[in-house]
Amino acid sequence: MSPPFPSSQKANPDDRRTLKTMKLWREKQGRDARVDEYTAGNDPVLDLELVPYDCLASIAHARMLRAAKVISAGETLALEKELRTIMSAARAGRFKIRPEEEDGHTAIENRLVRRLGGSGKKIHTARSRNDQVLVALRLYSRDKLDETRTALARLVETLNRLGKTYRSARMPGYTHARKAMPYSVGRYFRAFADALKDDLALIASARRLNDQNPLGTAAGYGVPLAIDRELTTRLLGFRKTQRNALYTQNSRGKFEAVILFVLSQVMLDLQRLAHDLILFSMDEFGFFILPERFCTGSSIMPQKKNPDVLELVRASLAVVHSGYFRVMEILKGLPSGYHRDLQLTKEPLILGFKHTLKTIGIVDLVLGELRVDKGKCRRACTEEVYAAEQVYRLVGKGIAFRDAYRKISRLY
Amino acid sequence: MSPPFPSSQKANPDDRRTLKTMKLWREKQGRDARVDEYTAGNDPVLDLELVPYDCLASIAHARMLRAAKVISAGETLALEKELRTIMSAARAGRFKIRPEEEDGHTAIENRLVRRLGGSGKKIHTARSRNDQVLVALRLYSRDKLDETRTALARLVETLNRLGKTYRSARMPGYTHARKAMPYSVGRYFRAFADALKDDLALIASARRLNDQNPLGTAAGYGVPLAIDRELTTRLLGFRKTQRNALYTQNSRGKFEAVILFVLSQVMLDLQRLAHDLILFSMDEFGFFILPERFCTGSSIMPQKKNPDVLELVRASLAVVHSGYFRVMEILKGLPSGYHRDLQLTKEPLILGFKHTLKTIGIVDLVLGELRVDKGKCRRACTEEVYAAEQVYRLVGKGIAFRDAYRKISRLY
Amino acid sequence: MSPPFPSSQKANPDDRRTLKTMKLWREKQGRDARVDEYTAGNDPVLDLELVPYDCLASIAHARMLRAAKVISAGETLALEKELRTIMSAARAGRFKIRPEEEDGHTAIENRLVRRLGGSGKKIHTARSRNDQVLVALRLYSRDKLDETRTALARLVETLNRLGKTYRSARMPGYTHARKAMPYSVGRYFRAFADALKDDLALIASARRLNDQNPLGTAAGYGVPLAIDRELTTRLLGFRKTQRNALYTQNSRGKFEAVILFVLSQVMLDLQRLAHDLILFSMDEFGFFILPERFCTGSSIMPQKKNPDVLELVRASLAVVHSGYFRVMEILKGLPSGYHRDLQLTKEPLILGFKHTLKTIGIVDLVLGELRVDKGKCRRACTEEVYAAEQVYRLVGKGIAFRDAYRKISRLY
Amino acid sequence: MSPPFPSSQKANPDDRRTLKTMKLWREKQGRDARVDEYTAGNDPVLDLELVPYDCLASIAHARMLRAAKVISAGETLALEKELRTIMSAARAGRFKIRPEEEDGHTAIENRLVRRLGGSGKKIHTARSRNDQVLVALRLYSRDKLDETRTALARLVETLNRLGKTYRSARMPGYTHARKAMPYSVGRYFRAFADALKDDLALIASARRLNDQNPLGTAAGYGVPLAIDRELTTRLLGFRKTQRNALYTQNSRGKFEAVILFVLSQVMLDLQRLAHDLILFSMDEFGFFILPERFCTGSSIMPQKKNPDVLELVRASLAVVHSGYFRVMEILKGLPSGYHRDLQLTKEPLILGFKHTLKTIGIVDLVLGELRVDKGKCRRACTEEVYAAEQVYRLVGKGIAFRDAYRKISRLY
Repeated sequence: MSPPFPSSQKANPDDRRTLKTMKLWREKQGRDARVDEYTAGNDPVLDLELVPYDCLASIAHARMLRAAKVISAGETLALEKELRTIMSAARAGRFKIRPEEEDGHTAIENRLVRRLGGSGKKIHTARSRNDQVLVALRLYSRDKLDETRTALARLVETLNRLGKTYRSARMPGYTHARKAMPYSVGRYFRAFADALKDDLALIASARRLNDQNPLGTAAGYGVPLAIDRELTTRLLGFRKTQRNALYTQNSRGKFEAVILFVLSQVMLDLQRLAHDLILFSMDEFGFFILPERFCTGSSIMPQKKNPDVLELVRASLAVVHSGYFRVMEILKGLPSGYHRDLQLTKEPLILGFKHTLKTIGIVDLVLGELRVDKGKCRRACTEEVYAAEQVYRLVGKGIAFRDAYRKISRLY
Repeated sequence: MSPPFPSSQKANPDDRRTLKTMKLWREKQGRDARVDEYTAGNDPVLDLELVPYDCLASIAHARMLRAAKVISAGETLALEKELRTIMSAARAGRFKIRPEEEDGHTAIENRLVRRLGGSGKKIHTARSRNDQVLVALRLYSRDKLDETRTALARLVETLNRLGKTYRSARMPGYTHARKAMPYSVGRYFRAFADALKDDLALIASARRLNDQNPLGTAAGYGVPLAIDRELTTRLLGFRKTQRNALYTQNSRGKFEAVILFVLSQVMLDLQRLAHDLILFSMDEFGFFILPERFCTGSSIMPQKKNPDVLELVRASLAVVHSGYFRVMEILKGLPSGYHRDLQLTKEPLILGFKHTLKTIGIVDLVLGELRVDKGKCRRACTEEVYAAEQVYRLVGKGIAFRDAYRKISRLY
Repeated sequence: MSPPFPSSQKANPDDRRTLKTMKLWREKQGRDARVDEYTAGNDPVLDLELVPYDCLASIAHARMLRAAKVISAGETLALEKELRTIMSAARAGRFKIRPEEEDGHTAIENRLVRRLGGSGKKIHTARSRNDQVLVALRLYSRDKLDETRTALARLVETLNRLGKTYRSARMPGYTHARKAMPYSVGRYFRAFADALKDDLALIASARRLNDQNPLGTAAGYGVPLAIDRELTTRLLGFRKTQRNALYTQNSRGKFEAVILFVLSQVMLDLQRLAHDLILFSMDEFGFFILPERFCTGSSIMPQKKNPDVLELVRASLAVVHSGYFRVMEILKGLPSGYHRDLQLTKEPLILGFKHTLKTIGIVDLVLGELRVDKGKCRRACTEEVYAAEQVYRLVGKGIAFRDAYRKISRLY
Repeated sequence: MSPPFPSSQKANPDDRRTLKTMKLWREKQGRDARVDEYTAGNDPVLDLELVPYDCLASIAHARMLRAAKVISAGETLALEKELRTIMSAARAGRFKIRPEEEDGHTAIENRLVRRLGGSGKKIHTARSRNDQVLVALRLYSRDKLDETRTALARLVETLNRLGKTYRSARMPGYTHARKAMPYSVGRYFRAFADALKDDLALIASARRLNDQNPLGTAAGYGVPLAIDRELTTRLLGFRKTQRNALYTQNSRGKFEAVILFVLSQVMLDLQRLAHDLILFSMDEFGFFILPERFCTGSSIMPQKKNPDVLELVRASLAVVHSGYFRVMEILKGLPSGYHRDLQLTKEPLILGFKHTLKTIGIVDLVLGELRVDKGKCRRACTEEVYAAEQVYRLVGKGIAFRDAYRKISRLY
């Protein structure tokens, strides 16, 4: 049985020349340059992150087209080879996206056409730029979520190590910013280990949600061609195929919001830790000492050793969380289906991952060298910190809790 | 061996009288009434939702105190009976919280002391108001998350039923608010079923996170008394005990944020559906018809049939999501440990659940009676909607996709 | 010349009976009760705040109708008298809005029709509920902005008084939460006086923006009747008439956002003051002492004197600011013209004003009794606080600033 | 009388070499490179915008130091000359900030020291980097607010011109996304002119707030040197001197929030216009026609002419407004005085201005070429749009409004 789509077509050398900077859609005459610049935005820069993932997805797509007999075995091989070359170039920082190409997806197709001619022109069969962007974002996010998980797990270990080291070091616990009851420095650090463990579970949820294959849904309404979506799902290692084509488009932005929310939860915990460390390393407390090589000076006060690095960790919640906010505000009020508005959700996602990873790393670094002044911690446990224990001594003698409490409260 | 804590103490009738409106902490003379009013806020109203859950947790706590030999079997029985009475009263709307009692937790303890004397004064042994509030909130949230899940699952069914009914009804799919390709009305509805199914998974994550027992961590630094926390975990059906006492306090607000985020995701999908239905039921489209008994009129234009109910669904994202925002803004910049700021996270949580549940119900109601004008849907699939199909016909004849695309694009 | 609109029509007693609970639009049979409840929301409660302002605007509207010869002098008088009665009742808390009336505007018209018959039925001539709500909100907001300004001006005075009292009391100034240079307690308080003075200018801007008369724009497209909009502008004391009818509708929500933003700026400054006072009244600093009658105790730790009132002030930014966020999120993605979504901007506005006013009052109260421990403040100015002064002594001896700085920095 | 500070000190050539990349504070050995990279962030890039404004402020500062006799006339001249050279270089894109210099302020001082030796080392007398950054930001913001005002005024003119051109072109007005009453295309455009005029007033408020001179407040606690702050206020053209040194620091971020809020109001109006234009240029309406050279195609559907440019305008609210959100979230929970957290408010401010200016320009461009299909607008005014007019005809015949309304409503 002969293949339904002959794939012997030869590349036309003319095409290679004229298509150098073609967009993925046919341009009409007289496009306004200012509009082009406005619509491209900083995609040419941001997309450098996504190029390797687009290549990966394109390889899977090519194999699927081969299985569907849209392209030949030879074409598949050539496409795959060229895509791997682009992937390496991109990873080495040597792949460029020209502003007039709009984005990375166009740059890749242009290069395929330039190098391979006809086969390059077939790679877009049975897909749209919409699902192409989606699949690249999903693969990228999966990788970055895994990196985040690994970095966070390392930080949990660091905190648990501190928890063990300072298990029996006593420090006052505070409520309402007032000394409350005695606690342990070790358990203080473990509080953050436990918080981040809950965040790891949230990251796992986001990863699971994200792990759905959108490729083959095209612009949100499928393609009039019999394709094997399960094949690309398997090849790309997705947990499942995202079946409904319209929902696949509608989930653009939604998944980004979920991811940015989860990263914000990590940052929420780290900003609290940073805030605590800034407070407790003040001379007025002196519980923690931040090594000088992590401190910053003042341009006017020569005595200053400022905890700038921790202050920036504290502010980092806002960097990531404002990205979440941006995505949600973009989504509000959009009807179903793809809208170009969604392009502007890419930047907060990429910056959110970068900033979170950098911040986790820096906190790990700081904690690794943080010093605890056990003497100051212990001496800060002044008498009133034991008032609740006094109550419980009376309770042990048979006095009802509320009566014991009232008795002791008269002493303060 | 005799019990370490005698529990025979008799109630002192004087106490009953003087303690009528006692706060849970010893008040100094001359409290400022305006401060009292400011600090109580609307807790006396909001806490009515939480009273049954506090009673439940208090029963578990009493049984644990019995096991720890802090109270006798008789006292446990009396406390449990009285707590069940309060629970019923609260569920029937007959339990009142006096403004001078500050909150529901105080109102319950006051009533226990009034009715039972000494045993009432012992119920607060080995706990603080902090973990008491936390455990009530966790039980309340678990219930409400389950209610939300049930309501949402019902809505998914409604959508799937519509999906089945209109499977073969054709309508145009839109991208960029422009007709794109042919789609099906059934698949349109299924897009939302799939979105809500992803939300159900998010709800399950939030439920799992929330399902940790905080009882016994007291004010965030434990209690100087050997207690069996696993016992209350079992009695209250929690998945696990939240071990670190400081993290338990630090997770106040954080868990609320996670829950409100998840509810916001539900509302995000429903606002999109509402927005679509408002648009597609305009005369200019006419795809959907909202029954008149769901429409609202104008005070000046007698012809109007307005989709107010859908407009309010659309706005509801902001109602729930601003609650998320409030919680996150409260948390930012707070050091570790309990702060009274956290009291103000209770209202957005309770209102968030109420509004989400009401909105899911109303959407289900509307969808149940929504009518589809299949003729208008079909006729809206005008010629250009099939342009991509034209391209694929050429692809089928062996023309490379990009060349076929360019050929057809010249027709438009 | 005879008047174009005869106004002699008599009230029909039947109408009075049947219209008792009429909505402002003609209802069709079989309205769904759940939809009614969902759409009314808590308008019946919130609108009690607006009723007096609606009456005021209705009186101006009646006089304008009289000038336009739509109603007679007698009818105007009767309407005005009845509206004044309602206004007093509302101010005394004796005006009720029945749930089935939807909102305050309907309740007022129903009452006018019940009492006055035909004249009541004419009051809605040349207006729509849309501009009726708008004008009531503008009058309400103007009043509340003035109240806020007055309360804030009083607080500025309190702060300036503290500034004067503690002008020469020395305390350390902090940067990066580290002692920086010597400062004065008085100037510390003046910092907040100056912040609030800038807020007063923002309030004035919001007031000016709000001070535009929307009455007469009806549903956003005017009315087919010659009316004198300048007359109601004069009668209601507005700065100007908001001319463009569509923009008048589009400004619903926008003006609320501006107001809530400005109130949030006040709360931003107050939360910073509260945060400072909580910190500086810790035992570790001891600069400020919060009188015990403003402190709150713990249910478990008898020694505690917690600054709950200040913690709630700190959290109050989020209460008001989440209202701003809600309004902005509602507006995003709405096309021009009125949408029912806007109803849900009313609650954050009213609660925002209430909470801001309450918080300004409570801060004023606390500051009035706050005590300063001048000795502790002075002793906290330890040697390193004077390092910059040492630098400047060298500068005074002719050493370049940067060289002097480096010389002194070696000492630390 | 001899000057109190001799200014004859010669530059030490050694210093020039060793100080090449000095930070403004004395570094200790063994700084961690990762910390340096984390704390510098993207200041080296962002600060390029601020360099010219820092130079301007430094010139004024030098003149003030001359008046205070800290530096000689010759030194002042040399500093001013060099600063003007830097300013020109920066404006021409030829000034570089090395990553190890941290920021633009350090880069400028380093260059002054390299070129001028001793005088360069004196420029930082009587100021801190804190007020140096503040004054540069204020001058920058003043310029950008003026640019925004100019661009916006131009857009108002464009809209008014459209208002005039289409004054008598009839189109239906919509409420609740349903045809309501007849309106005019001209008045439609004027609605946005009026909205932007209100925004111009908000911009003026922000400009006035921003127009306060912070220079001379140093790190928030002044300098121990008699300086003439009014002189720099006059030289830099500020409206007034911001007197309280601590408030000056506390206003960092606050002013940025006000500016970003005001820019967000502009974007709020433009996103609504964009949303309308996208809707009304759908084939289903056809009121407006977006010229093809502003449209974008699809990679899969050859017929598509997508309004991407308008979609990106719509999404731009979120770009600017998430910057506002970031600033506010950073500020929440910070005690008084400078904190490094504030560094991260710089990026949203600069990007906010850039994006707003770009978007205003693009909207002006699009409106300049937008076409109105007057025939379609007119024909869309179908019969029911005149229902309110029918009511008023009955009112004209003496029927009470409410009765007339009910009569006509029976027809629909």
